[in-house]
Amino acid sequence: MALVLYERVCADDRRPSPYCWRARLALAHKGLTPECRPVKFTESDLVAFSGQHKVPVLVDDDRVVSDSWEIACYLEDTYPEAPSLFDGPGGRALARFINHWADHGLQKALSPILAPYVHAVAVPEDRDYYRQTREARWGESLEQLAARRAIYLDALGPVLEPLRQRLTESPFLCGEKPAYGDYLAFAEFQWARSVCDQDILSPDETTLSAWRTCMLDLFGGLARSVTAFETAA
Amino acid sequence: MALVLYERVCADDRRPSPYCWRARLALAHKGLTPECRPVKFTESDLVAFSGQHKVPVLVDDDRVVSDSWEIACYLEDTYPEAPSLFDGPGGRALARFINHWADHGLQKALSPILAPYVHAVAVPEDRDYYRQTREARWGESLEQLAARRAIYLDALGPVLEPLRQRLTESPFLCGEKPAYGDYLAFAEFQWARSVCDQDILSPDETTLSAWRTCMLDLFGGLARSVTAFETAA
Repeated sequence: MALVLYERVCADDRRPSPYCWRARLALAHKGLTPECRPVKFTESDLVAFSGQHKVPVLVDDDRVVSDSWEIACYLEDTYPEAPSLFDGPGGRALARFINHWADHGLQKALSPILAPYVHAVAVPEDRDYYRQTREARWGESLEQLAARRAIYLDALGPVLEPLRQRLTESPFLCGEKPAYGDYLAFAEFQWARSVCDQDILSPDETTLSAWRTCMLDLFGGLARSVTAFETAA
Repeated sequence: MALVLYERVCADDRRPSPYCWRARLALAHKGLTPECRPVKFTESDLVAFSGQHKVPVLVDDDRVVSDSWEIACYLEDTYPEAPSLFDGPGGRALARFINHWADHGLQKALSPILAPYVHAVAVPEDRDYYRQTREARWGESLEQLAARRAIYLDALGPVLEPLRQRLTESPFLCGEKPAYGDYLAFAEFQWARSVCDQDILSPDETTLSAWRTCMLDLFGGLARSVTAFETAA
């Protein structure tokens, strides 16, 4: 069986993409270990065979799946005998909502904090591309974003409240055991950890920190096994 | 069988409480029709028998359940043969997260918009109590909140984005059919509709409006059957 995951890479073999971490953790949940092939920001041609240019792309023998949500659904449907990512049809439907919350709530709050850090750890040949695309998206320079870091960190706090509340009452977002909902949220923290030399959580965030530690420990410490800054858990 | 739901009431028999709407819709989903007993803000003694002072409180023969989430779980476990509110254990776990998103995201964004309207439709004997408790919570007057209505409405837009995105791809938050996740979100809109003479959605919010209309049509138009302002769908 040839299982290949194409994922974003930065300098020092960092793997920052939250979308790719969703796929990596979903694969691990299913007991699957892909060969991970790094793709720089300026190497989208490497995944052109998938009919689009974004990572992650999963190749499972002759099947090609792009988009992290499609990959999760593909794994759930193709490997039904392995532990479920969704734990029932209701879980799949609501995980999709949490996917949108991760994209448009959590990730949107993190993006202006992390973009300057991603630029700093991008491989040299990607930096111009990254700066250009992100500054166009934000309508201002990475330096202007960086100057407002404290403001963006303050705004992150309330965005995390549903997760914080949920984790005060059960060890994982998905209950007693982690599942795809946890991977959706944790992938954003893993993004931060991969690029940023300062913790995005303040020291008093004990509930979120404890969960993050549990998530880092999963699958033999999979999420710890990559290059990251030590300061962020 | 005696099934009684204690719920908040305002003037003209308005039923504004989003928590109570969660319970009403969960009961309807299970095919159950409670006797609804109105409780004014200053009548918390009416539910003191439940060991706490908040609505909703459900009485099902000799069983007493308070808290909207506990009521949903009670109904799911007690009436398993009726349509499921959660559609599996994963759905229940993630619905709890959405419960927190509804409380700390959507409701938090709506509260400063709606508080002045709730005050205006509260029964006269409740108004001082309502003003006092809410102004203490917000640290400013209802009039100050009302003066910033446009700002709060602007801030509501991004909060709704996960729901907006979800509803672009399926008719309900929970998929092809509505379930508890939908009731959690819709109950907040029903709160607005019960007290506010202006629509909280702008006219270009076609996706959210269409879903809201479907929700209003459910269960023979249950959510339309109460006093509301016509302007809000």
